[in-house]
Amino acid sequence: MHYQLFYWTGIQGRGEFVRLALEDAGASYVDVARDQGDDAIVQYLDGVHDGALPFAPPFLKAGRLLIAQTANILHYLGPPLDLVPASESRRLYAHQLQLTIADLVAEVHDSHHPIAGSLYYEDQRVEARRRAASLRETRLPKYLDYFEQVIERAGSCHPVHQHSYVDLSLFQLMLGLEYAFPRAMQRVGRGLPLLLALKERVAQRPRIAAYLTSARRVPFNENGIFRHYPELDDPA
Amino acid sequence: MHYQLFYWTGIQGRGEFVRLALEDAGASYVDVARDQGDDAIVQYLDGVHDGALPFAPPFLKAGRLLIAQTANILHYLGPPLDLVPASESRRLYAHQLQLTIADLVAEVHDSHHPIAGSLYYEDQRVEARRRAASLRETRLPKYLDYFEQVIERAGSCHPVHQHSYVDLSLFQLMLGLEYAFPRAMQRVGRGLPLLLALKERVAQRPRIAAYLTSARRVPFNENGIFRHYPELDDPA
Repeated sequence: MHYQLFYWTGIQGRGEFVRLALEDAGASYVDVARDQGDDAIVQYLDGVHDGALPFAPPFLKAGRLLIAQTANILHYLGPPLDLVPASESRRLYAHQLQLTIADLVAEVHDSHHPIAGSLYYEDQRVEARRRAASLRETRLPKYLDYFEQVIERAGSCHPVHQHSYVDLSLFQLMLGLEYAFPRAMQRVGRGLPLLLALKERVAQRPRIAAYLTSARRVPFNENGIFRHYPELDDPA
Repeated sequence: MHYQLFYWTGIQGRGEFVRLALEDAGASYVDVARDQGDDAIVQYLDGVHDGALPFAPPFLKAGRLLIAQTANILHYLGPPLDLVPASESRRLYAHQLQLTIADLVAEVHDSHHPIAGSLYYEDQRVEARRRAASLRETRLPKYLDYFEQVIERAGSCHPVHQHSYVDLSLFQLMLGLEYAFPRAMQRVGRGLPLLLALKERVAQRPRIAAYLTSARRVPFNENGIFRHYPELDDPA
């Protein structure tokens, strides 16, 4: 199967979780907006096509299917890309974990945009400081301790017993958090040996290592979800 | 199959989306915390069991399976409760729509808690006013226009061609929004004839009508997701 991925150019964003799965599996895919511009996405949001209507990118075209919502795309891609265990219970668990990652990603986004995504960061800096403090002190440790416990309970080094898209997404999550909140992650990371080991292991997978050094990997930047604003990190 | 639903007592919350599906299907289920108290939930969050670890309720036990994340639970329950079309493409679409409902539900929650879920509303009132204005003026119309368009494109009165859990969740969403933001919904609702018709239709389903007047239906209140704070609604 050849896949078409639709996601905004210029940022990693939520599209990156799908991109990492396609890259890790060596799948045949094209990143449509990078070839044709963001207008290629807008057409589908405007509904000038038959079938499922996406609310926002990322979305994926696979034959006649159009699938939106990051976790839904990964749930769909898991079996053909061999990136999820075959049993129903583990597939459901992988999806549950991915949805929990998505919840944290939304909270990270809102740490720099607590009032409105349509306003500039500069117009909500004061509120962002309060929200980011709550994220760093309460939410981040709660989520990351949870994922650490998930890996521990699995009794292997993977959250769902074998390498899966959840490993790839946790890898991306850890990189993004370390980029955005280096001081907080230094502190919180001390209690996360299994997540840190997972991150190292994923980075060494040959296709991921090749992807990370390729031009296809957009660097983290201050237009994406994981933004480095020093005033939102732990005090120095 | 007999189901055990785990969700906090005293509020509808995210558990209500699952409850409506179980009620509409006439499924055999027990609402565990209402019998045993919220401690029954905490045990599972603490991981004193084998298998999948939930991050938060709602979660469902079905035989040996434990499934968390609202949309994941509905994705699982859809086929046995006959609340989703059988084809893969429509099942994926229903799930995509449910995940988009979940995104809006999270934004509604954050309209009264823009800084931290761990703080009282009274400690983030000023920020809540700004965020709620953005929700009412930008996000709510965008999401609801999208769902209206989804129903229109389906060419039937249902978002995914036949009665499904998505109808039930959109019903709950509309009721919750009308409770929380009666003035804004009066305004926005003028452009939503299909969603309003869906709401009326679901309310008349015999098992739903019976459920809504039963003691099992907790009223909307100011501890849940949909809260009525007049200062967060459109100005009178």
